[in-house]
Amino acid sequence: MARSKRGSYTVGLERRERILEAASQRFTSSGYSRTSLAEIARDVGITTPGLTHHFPTKQHLLLAIAERRFDVAQSIAEAALGELDGTRTLRVLLSLSELFAEQPGLMELFVLISAEAADPNSPAHELFQERYTRIATEIATFFMAEVASGALRPDLDYQAIARECIAVSDGLQLQYVLSEGKLDLVGQSRAHLERLASSILLSGGEKVSLA
Amino acid sequence: MARSKRGSYTVGLERRERILEAASQRFTSSGYSRTSLAEIARDVGITTPGLTHHFPTKQHLLLAIAERRFDVAQSIAEAALGELDGTRTLRVLLSLSELFAEQPGLMELFVLISAEAADPNSPAHELFQERYTRIATEIATFFMAEVASGALRPDLDYQAIARECIAVSDGLQLQYVLSEGKLDLVGQSRAHLERLASSILLSGGEKVSLA
Repeated sequence: MARSKRGSYTVGLERRERILEAASQRFTSSGYSRTSLAEIARDVGITTPGLTHHFPTKQHLLLAIAERRFDVAQSIAEAALGELDGTRTLRVLLSLSELFAEQPGLMELFVLISAEAADPNSPAHELFQERYTRIATEIATFFMAEVASGALRPDLDYQAIARECIAVSDGLQLQYVLSEGKLDLVGQSRAHLERLASSILLSGGEKVSLA
Repeated sequence: MARSKRGSYTVGLERRERILEAASQRFTSSGYSRTSLAEIARDVGITTPGLTHHFPTKQHLLLAIAERRFDVAQSIAEAALGELDGTRTLRVLLSLSELFAEQPGLMELFVLISAEAADPNSPAHELFQERYTRIATEIATFFMAEVASGALRPDLDYQAIARECIAVSDGLQLQYVLSEGKLDLVGQSRAHLERLASSILLSGGEKVSLA
């Protein structure tokens, strides 16, 4: 009984995933504005109505791709293990940069949807607003655990530091896209995080390597 | 003779400026997609053909607004005076944040056009690519003058630090727009620049205030 229920639910989820995967690839290779829902449906091997049953418009697809990227980043962050030595949070942030660098096409889409999210009338606005607040709070909580463990300085505003880290990540992704992939995203992120390390570690001062 | 030549040139430039000003205000108050060229022409008190003579499409207007914002930022930076004490470049960057915070509507437009610039087929792409490279080089040159004066550490990659500063500025502007103006843009920028100061100053270590 449990099996058959799970069965159809899983099938639906899997199809949804396959659609998002195909849409990401199409948007990335042909461009968002030049891609049609019919093409995506064809790539997945389903009918266009079969696709619009899950995602009525391209905008819904773009939003779902953004949401999935947030979810993946969040689960990577939450699964992070390691000593509370003051560099754990920074290492998590660096691993997210590495993940982003492996998916350059998604960076371009993300810049695109960020702009859409800037419009208060867009459905992306609420999603981004809520997610950015949540992510900043989560990163700050990560840092605070390392403050509690005695590894990080207790006199700093970690909410502001979390927002700085998000800003560097977003800003570097924009520069990466503008540079057509020439910018060393991971190297640039590491340089920022290592510099940040030496100013937030209680041991302070010395050069920190996150390599 | 010189006067009459300059006269018509100045009239053209002034009209161009008035159009860009009106377009910025319309885009900001009504939204880019909901604004028509006819409305902007009406605001300026000229005919629509009179406007399209200067700017054939809304996209041309958006691009010119972006270009003007780059120009303003650049002239502020170049006019910066002050001792080469290791905080001059950082103070210039802070004053740019203050300028951006005074023009919140432009931030939303800037996020919008950044996304457009992410598309390699857009005319904004080339503009942004060229400008970002130039700005990063200029900021790095500013820092290097302070290295030469003996105020900043000579062993750092100032091109990478310049790119970090641009990323923080862009990323914070996105967060400002998403937060509907609640983010303390100037305070957040200052926190970043002060933290950066203490890791690049040759005197190092101590807390630096840019207030």
